[in-house]
Amino acid sequence: MYEQLLRHPFTSASGREQCQALDLVVAMRDVELALAAEQEHLGMLPEGTAEALGEYLTPEVFDVEALADDTAKGGNAAIPFVKQAKAALPATLKPHFHRGATSQDIVDSALMLMLKPRLTRCRRLLTASIDDGRSLMVTHRDTAMVGRTLMQQALPLTFGAKVGQWAWGLHQAGERLDDVLAGGLYVQFGGAVGVHSGLDDAGVAIMTGMASRLGLAEPWLPWHTDRQPIHALGSAMDAVAVAAEKVALDIALLTQTEVGELAEPAEAGVGESSSMPHKRNPVGCARIRAAARQIHATLNVLSNAGAQPLERGLGEWHAEWAPLMDAVLLLEGALETLHHLLGGLEVHAHVMARNLDVTGGAIMAEPAARVLQSILANDDARRVAREASENARRDGVAYADALLDHEDVVGSGIDAEALRQAVRPESYIGSSRCLVERVLERLNFS
Amino acid sequence: MYEQLLRHPFTSASGREQCQALDLVVAMRDVELALAAEQEHLGMLPEGTAEALGEYLTPEVFDVEALADDTAKGGNAAIPFVKQAKAALPATLKPHFHRGATSQDIVDSALMLMLKPRLTRCRRLLTASIDDGRSLMVTHRDTAMVGRTLMQQALPLTFGAKVGQWAWGLHQAGERLDDVLAGGLYVQFGGAVGVHSGLDDAGVAIMTGMASRLGLAEPWLPWHTDRQPIHALGSAMDAVAVAAEKVALDIALLTQTEVGELAEPAEAGVGESSSMPHKRNPVGCARIRAAARQIHATLNVLSNAGAQPLERGLGEWHAEWAPLMDAVLLLEGALETLHHLLGGLEVHAHVMARNLDVTGGAIMAEPAARVLQSILANDDARRVAREASENARRDGVAYADALLDHEDVVGSGIDAEALRQAVRPESYIGSSRCLVERVLERLNFS
Amino acid sequence: MYEQLLRHPFTSASGREQCQALDLVVAMRDVELALAAEQEHLGMLPEGTAEALGEYLTPEVFDVEALADDTAKGGNAAIPFVKQAKAALPATLKPHFHRGATSQDIVDSALMLMLKPRLTRCRRLLTASIDDGRSLMVTHRDTAMVGRTLMQQALPLTFGAKVGQWAWGLHQAGERLDDVLAGGLYVQFGGAVGVHSGLDDAGVAIMTGMASRLGLAEPWLPWHTDRQPIHALGSAMDAVAVAAEKVALDIALLTQTEVGELAEPAEAGVGESSSMPHKRNPVGCARIRAAARQIHATLNVLSNAGAQPLERGLGEWHAEWAPLMDAVLLLEGALETLHHLLGGLEVHAHVMARNLDVTGGAIMAEPAARVLQSILANDDARRVAREASENARRDGVAYADALLDHEDVVGSGIDAEALRQAVRPESYIGSSRCLVERVLERLNFS
Amino acid sequence: MYEQLLRHPFTSASGREQCQALDLVVAMRDVELALAAEQEHLGMLPEGTAEALGEYLTPEVFDVEALADDTAKGGNAAIPFVKQAKAALPATLKPHFHRGATSQDIVDSALMLMLKPRLTRCRRLLTASIDDGRSLMVTHRDTAMVGRTLMQQALPLTFGAKVGQWAWGLHQAGERLDDVLAGGLYVQFGGAVGVHSGLDDAGVAIMTGMASRLGLAEPWLPWHTDRQPIHALGSAMDAVAVAAEKVALDIALLTQTEVGELAEPAEAGVGESSSMPHKRNPVGCARIRAAARQIHATLNVLSNAGAQPLERGLGEWHAEWAPLMDAVLLLEGALETLHHLLGGLEVHAHVMARNLDVTGGAIMAEPAARVLQSILANDDARRVAREASENARRDGVAYADALLDHEDVVGSGIDAEALRQAVRPESYIGSSRCLVERVLERLNFS
Repeated sequence: MYEQLLRHPFTSASGREQCQALDLVVAMRDVELALAAEQEHLGMLPEGTAEALGEYLTPEVFDVEALADDTAKGGNAAIPFVKQAKAALPATLKPHFHRGATSQDIVDSALMLMLKPRLTRCRRLLTASIDDGRSLMVTHRDTAMVGRTLMQQALPLTFGAKVGQWAWGLHQAGERLDDVLAGGLYVQFGGAVGVHSGLDDAGVAIMTGMASRLGLAEPWLPWHTDRQPIHALGSAMDAVAVAAEKVALDIALLTQTEVGELAEPAEAGVGESSSMPHKRNPVGCARIRAAARQIHATLNVLSNAGAQPLERGLGEWHAEWAPLMDAVLLLEGALETLHHLLGGLEVHAHVMARNLDVTGGAIMAEPAARVLQSILANDDARRVAREASENARRDGVAYADALLDHEDVVGSGIDAEALRQAVRPESYIGSSRCLVERVLERLNFS
Repeated sequence: MYEQLLRHPFTSASGREQCQALDLVVAMRDVELALAAEQEHLGMLPEGTAEALGEYLTPEVFDVEALADDTAKGGNAAIPFVKQAKAALPATLKPHFHRGATSQDIVDSALMLMLKPRLTRCRRLLTASIDDGRSLMVTHRDTAMVGRTLMQQALPLTFGAKVGQWAWGLHQAGERLDDVLAGGLYVQFGGAVGVHSGLDDAGVAIMTGMASRLGLAEPWLPWHTDRQPIHALGSAMDAVAVAAEKVALDIALLTQTEVGELAEPAEAGVGESSSMPHKRNPVGCARIRAAARQIHATLNVLSNAGAQPLERGLGEWHAEWAPLMDAVLLLEGALETLHHLLGGLEVHAHVMARNLDVTGGAIMAEPAARVLQSILANDDARRVAREASENARRDGVAYADALLDHEDVVGSGIDAEALRQAVRPESYIGSSRCLVERVLERLNFS
Repeated sequence: MYEQLLRHPFTSASGREQCQALDLVVAMRDVELALAAEQEHLGMLPEGTAEALGEYLTPEVFDVEALADDTAKGGNAAIPFVKQAKAALPATLKPHFHRGATSQDIVDSALMLMLKPRLTRCRRLLTASIDDGRSLMVTHRDTAMVGRTLMQQALPLTFGAKVGQWAWGLHQAGERLDDVLAGGLYVQFGGAVGVHSGLDDAGVAIMTGMASRLGLAEPWLPWHTDRQPIHALGSAMDAVAVAAEKVALDIALLTQTEVGELAEPAEAGVGESSSMPHKRNPVGCARIRAAARQIHATLNVLSNAGAQPLERGLGEWHAEWAPLMDAVLLLEGALETLHHLLGGLEVHAHVMARNLDVTGGAIMAEPAARVLQSILANDDARRVAREASENARRDGVAYADALLDHEDVVGSGIDAEALRQAVRPESYIGSSRCLVERVLERLNFS
Repeated sequence: MYEQLLRHPFTSASGREQCQALDLVVAMRDVELALAAEQEHLGMLPEGTAEALGEYLTPEVFDVEALADDTAKGGNAAIPFVKQAKAALPATLKPHFHRGATSQDIVDSALMLMLKPRLTRCRRLLTASIDDGRSLMVTHRDTAMVGRTLMQQALPLTFGAKVGQWAWGLHQAGERLDDVLAGGLYVQFGGAVGVHSGLDDAGVAIMTGMASRLGLAEPWLPWHTDRQPIHALGSAMDAVAVAAEKVALDIALLTQTEVGELAEPAEAGVGESSSMPHKRNPVGCARIRAAARQIHATLNVLSNAGAQPLERGLGEWHAEWAPLMDAVLLLEGALETLHHLLGGLEVHAHVMARNLDVTGGAIMAEPAARVLQSILANDDARRVAREASENARRDGVAYADALLDHEDVVGSGIDAEALRQAVRPESYIGSSRCLVERVLERLNFS
């Protein structure tokens, strides 16, 4: 299908391999077996039922193509799945299968089973990316570069501090993912109208037991039309996407030809242009940004479909499925790329140094004016600082020299060394080192 | 892949069949051949080049799996596609292939080639659905039913008039689709930075000629980062989705058990519940609503990615691909379902009549008060109209009888027949017939 | 402005009163005073500076109209605010004002100061709404009603269990709000490029101290372009909106004329129609739904603007301001309405009972078939259960009678009492009571 | 209110002045007067009624504060408006007021009256911006600059051609606005359930006549829950926003300190930093981008609220109001800014020339290799072109010299002049001039 060339390139290849249609069928089967096992455990089914069901319901008994065709008719995959499964069972087992369950129980739980390993891998990739960031922070603790606001050169900071921002953003997003992983991927079990019809209070025990058997979180209530768990999951995934997208945006801006402070890791066949042999495109950044934008839209679906009517949605629920899986695979893909980018990022410290100089020192006018205030009035100090910057740019001389050569400074007896020192960008990096230390300190505990 | 069970059930099966990965490869091939043919036509390539290229570049020479893998690396499908194609060509033909083109030229044009037949089918399905609506309008020109505002019973209208609203909504959306089909699916051809580098003004002629060869619209300029065409396309698709979604919402509300005025066409295996044998679920409505919500999100991606930087997007373009194809296939699926729903809709006119009665006539209090004004003061007339409605409901009698039996009316010499006539809902349908005529009149010309 | 009639009706009146333009100015002033106080505390400013600044910078010194005009020019409100403030200060204090700060420090922190009391009130309203739900749960613990899936009658549950779902949804959303309130409303302080330029490591101490003085959370780093805190805040607000919207959707559906199980609290002047005197519109539900949809769009802005370039956004940050304030005031308005709705909800238990009956017992076919299995084969039991339901509806008799009168049952020796009992909806409410207990148990600890 | 400092800075000041709450009240009054006038014209009301109504219903009779308070209760502004109006009328006129109308008729029509002059001004600003673009195109027809793809330097084009892209994008968006203005701002008139209850077929004539009296488009049917007109309007506004946002993004990127090819018009007080005196921030671009992002979200509301139930929305309609007005005023503000930017844009042609050189000629490797093919094999030509570029950058010499000095070229008898000519960027601008001509040609007819 078209997705192979149009969506999958932004997703994780290894993730996709585990998200085949058959994997979803197997996940639905696992949910049914957990249901039977728990009912057996509670004495509601004869001993050995779950095992017997498992022996009949091997993946091979399911015809995925037919399932897909019939899903359209039934409205969801569990309806034809239950039919196919029953057809594969002997008459004695049929009544023990899918007992007290509704199709949403099966689909929601199976989706959570699909999502869990993917989110776990996302979390691992996030941790790895943060670790990459840690190395960059340590290496570039003292690498001064220009800070840019509204994309204009502003004042210096260190590259370490910038990476600290990236890492801290990823860390915060990671904590939201942790919350979801720790207790937000719930089993679904409530029967037709969410009150365990026909099972009565045993339904609650079954729900709880299934969660434990499947390694999913135990919900306090069935959540057929309470989509708070889905909203929390979707917004956590989007938060991670935003954190990755921020890094990609910064890298893309810093790899611009004229800026040149960073480059994506060089790799054969990556970032080539079909027409321009000299180019190295920041393809990794493009992929992350493409994925993130699509993830934002999945949250938009989940948010607008969050209020679902009465005991079961009428399209709202159905609208969640593909966006949820798209989101997690796009996220896994984006994080693979992010880890690759941060792990092999080319940092051109000399270009950072060069760029600190391109305004002829104008970015250092503020500290310059402070020193000049020792010999000049406040307003004059600012004027001289500005004029010297214009002179420096025009004459191609260093800002410190332009300041010392300014007619209002010459002969003033100013402390030349203090002035030279003050306008060295690397001495005006504020709390950059301290912020890096703070990030490193907290990441140790993450 | 998971899409098979989670997204595809909402899309068109026949549409999907024509949107395989290989179809996209063939579309890219066709774009390249049109480029070569036009360059040959303009004397820029030796005679026979395009034909020779076509003979070599049969679908079999492409390894779709490898293409998919390499798409992630290159950033888009055209880059490995061009490599695979060149590898399949003899040395003499290689330099004649992809000449002056950039990968976005190939991908954008190929996407338009993919979209065109799908949108054409969407338009046909829309026309068919409008035709279904026409039949319903004609049949139910005089079928009175209750109009509901904020989902409360309000005043009567006819079912014909309601269908007229549906049809007119579909018609307007269809006109937006017509605009796109008539001249909004452009060929893309601009070379690396959109100014036909190396081809000079001939590039414009090639662009124009390619459009004609491919049956696409001729752009006035290359549109690599001018995404107005994509925005117009995306919002037209979304408009159609909204029009279909409106019908699905109304049908879903009118098929509610307690309302019961409509039912989806009965069909074996459709709308069954996995646990409740008595239910007939409005699965068609659910499917349309699920598709529409996902289509809204595709427009959200296109809108937020509409502003693309400089001469080529950095992720914004890439973010468009899957949403565009998702949208058109979801739309085609929704319209297939809509056509099916409207073509076989069960209309329960007797339930519509019954529901007109459930408020004991309260919905006719306004016309009743008008007639009562012939014997009572304005405020009294309204009071009596209201009280009679309460009496009717309490005593289970007809509203007209309750009015005539009201103590302020008995003996008043009111024209009983006029009163009876006034409170017949079917005589208070306003312009319903006229509106139906208007819709029929205009749809004849569509 | 138009907002007064078009947006404000969906917001909280008391909330709006505290969100005047001048309140924002005062909040910005408070941020500056906290900055000065902390710098004074650290010995960086002369003793008494903060107090002196506070004496000069009374609200009256600010010209809000001029501020608004100049905000457009400067790009944000802090720029003209700082100018106006400095103009009001004596020369000796001017250099002590806004020292080391950037405009984003002031605006972000002031917004958090504006949001905090509003979110606190939202949390209180949420708690009050949950308490309303608790009362309804207790009162209607045993009130059987029909459960509806895809808006079709399915199987019984209790109204208490339905309210339990509402309350649990609100509770979960409330926990997300709690997280934000407990530690997600951060002070912003980082200076021009987020590294406390000119202040060095003292900047971190100032940041920390300001948080404490302002009652805001202490950030680990400045977060000028790390918008994770904003994403978490926006998605928490949206989660609450979804939880309220779910309740409003259910109430709206259950107040439909033909369903009639609920009504909004009657109140003079609320829900009237401008043309139809008999109507009582579910205006509260409409207002909540209108607010929720607009809140979803604010999250869409925040999500798409989450990745901000380098050290300061170029429009992305600016795009956040109005959506954040809109969201919180719309949410506060929606929750006021929700509390009003749940506090005065009219519950028509007799209509719930009546509606359980409208299918002639079809919704009880499943338990009926179970009892019939004592005398009939499995498939026959299901057939008889279905046929009896059709007979009951046709003949207007009770389902139990129709079952006992069915030719395959008459004379079968079936336990008539067991059958009568089995098809009483109120005896087939599954775990409804248990689920209510669970919710009550947990809400006690909330 | 907070909007004054947080939303209004991105909107049009002159636009806002005409969108006060009272303006909306006057617009509602005008709709009512048009209704009465048309009913009078058709003989349904006594002669002179409309004039008499107009004399009583001066703006002063309305208490806007009370209206705003009661709007929350009634659900929309027309309900208290009608009450206030009736209270101001003598008893004889009361029954002639609002006859046959429903509140949505009044609000929808009044909104269209509010939107029309704003959209007209948007169209004028768009035309003015396109005219600014025309001047830039003419002036910079031959100004070569580097084209950038994925933000990397790619190949040359002219600044004129780039502006041509901007202008053409604006032009296309303008055509969508034209469609709306020409026939998409409809009067609304349908009565309670959209079928002119009580007026019968005369309702259609009244609807038509009102449109003409109000200068609005005549709808074919009432459109209470057919929101196609709103979707078309919202997506047209968003298309214009995208076109403006694209220009702002490009300008912002080209004003980056390291790129420096453009600067926003210098203006006192605009773009200053609160902490860095040397900076000139691209505040205009930031404002446009902030507005555009918020406009995208308004379309998201309209799209998700497009399907409205039965005869009147239950919150969906209400959700449209503020977003519609927000969108038009944000758009008007963005276009004012755009016109200002394009009208006074500083174009630094010398920096464009300088930037063409920063890769040491690598961007000219493609044309260089073509000339080298006269003396070298294909692959060797490409290698030499690449190596010379590296030498040029390393040694700081011109690319042409580096090519001619390459060991494989020296003594080869190559046509040095041809080579020098080939690698002049200004000779490799493709169809740039032709594309400018095309845009100019078509814009003459706009």
